[in-house]
Amino acid sequence: MRIFIAIAYKGTNYHGWQIQPNAHSVQQEVTQALHTILRNQQISIVGSGRTDAGVHAKMQVAHADVPNTTDIYDLMYRLNAVLPKDIVIIQVEKVDDKAHARFDATKRSYEYHLRNKRSPFCPNEYYYYPISLNYKAMNKAAESLHGQHDFTSFSKVKTEVNNFECTIFEAKWEPNSNGAVFYISANRFLRGMVRAIVGSLLLIGEGKQQPEFMTELINVKDRTKAGRAVPANGLYLSKVIYPYF
Amino acid sequence: MRIFIAIAYKGTNYHGWQIQPNAHSVQQEVTQALHTILRNQQISIVGSGRTDAGVHAKMQVAHADVPNTTDIYDLMYRLNAVLPKDIVIIQVEKVDDKAHARFDATKRSYEYHLRNKRSPFCPNEYYYYPISLNYKAMNKAAESLHGQHDFTSFSKVKTEVNNFECTIFEAKWEPNSNGAVFYISANRFLRGMVRAIVGSLLLIGEGKQQPEFMTELINVKDRTKAGRAVPANGLYLSKVIYPYF
Repeated sequence: MRIFIAIAYKGTNYHGWQIQPNAHSVQQEVTQALHTILRNQQISIVGSGRTDAGVHAKMQVAHADVPNTTDIYDLMYRLNAVLPKDIVIIQVEKVDDKAHARFDATKRSYEYHLRNKRSPFCPNEYYYYPISLNYKAMNKAAESLHGQHDFTSFSKVKTEVNNFECTIFEAKWEPNSNGAVFYISANRFLRGMVRAIVGSLLLIGEGKQQPEFMTELINVKDRTKAGRAVPANGLYLSKVIYPYF
Repeated sequence: MRIFIAIAYKGTNYHGWQIQPNAHSVQQEVTQALHTILRNQQISIVGSGRTDAGVHAKMQVAHADVPNTTDIYDLMYRLNAVLPKDIVIIQVEKVDDKAHARFDATKRSYEYHLRNKRSPFCPNEYYYYPISLNYKAMNKAAESLHGQHDFTSFSKVKTEVNNFECTIFEAKWEPNSNGAVFYISANRFLRGMVRAIVGSLLLIGEGKQQPEFMTELINVKDRTKAGRAVPANGLYLSKVIYPYF
């Protein structure tokens, strides 16, 4: 029986989602917890995509094949009892045997959290950026991201991908009393893409570039031209959407 | 010249506000930072009151006497550069030479943060309590705290105080989508008082006691009768009010 597992995690203490040799990963923790509970070392899980070291998830999704007799409510309860406190299973659901957490995802959403006031609380959960920003200019620039474009300028150079086309559904800043949150959704994201987009938008917010800079960046297809990548601790994978989940 | 310093801190890594031998305290950190910046080992600070180990502050207030030539904006900036990240100076202001952070405070406010949903984020910033609560009953009980009462039943047994009278100005629960926040203000609080009040209100919220239990507790003047103290990590000193600050 195939299940989808929705997972929230604080990325601070992990080298990202993906299992790697000699590194601590979220995928490894969840896989080991399944091994412990189901007493089966063969079970593996497939995530909707990677998240980089230090990046958080309010909702990552993975699939796994478990024995037909598995009680999924009990499984969720026991996973949370076994997992470290910075990984929380928020949902477990039976899906079709051919459902695939990576291939079937139609939309991924990220959030980037900025604070402009110093705070002693939750130090790893946002990016402290005490510079005054023009959110109107940043939102004008963000609008130019909408639709299908080649995002080569915002991709990490070392990547196995050869298709840089992404379709952006949403890209907007919402200021709040302590800073702002950037919301972005797309059919897919390239490695490092959200952090390079946010870094470029900050240049516009500070007045170092005009809103038209974003369109120029898309057209130039050169990573060295975009803004620096902002830190991982402000970034959250917030939702993964499927036609059936 | 006397100054008031408003300080926010995350209490997790400290044995409370108060300087003690062989223990890490917030007062000690701020005092040492002043010594470093003003190059004067004689400066001491007086806080509005203690906070226990692990308890947070959104706003603690202390006074100190500094050289008349001190630039207070520069001092605040330099304190934040020197202090650890879990202590933040939020305001520095010149006050009258006789102003006193403890004696002149007319109102202290605390917040207690409960979450009923598991979360991987900010693990030390709230109390995870996944039990369904009747906030209507809890607020009915909280109303009976208003006004002047003897709070012996909610005080730690080991205390140097011999007056247990406190005047409560506000005591109410505000539920939110993830749990609730309890707001309580008084002219003064006894040691452990807020945590014992919250613990007693939880008994009412769970239906183990009726709302009238709070009045009975006040009248009985016996600490062994109140609910257990809830953990420090949900508690915040949120504001200290003065006639002039």
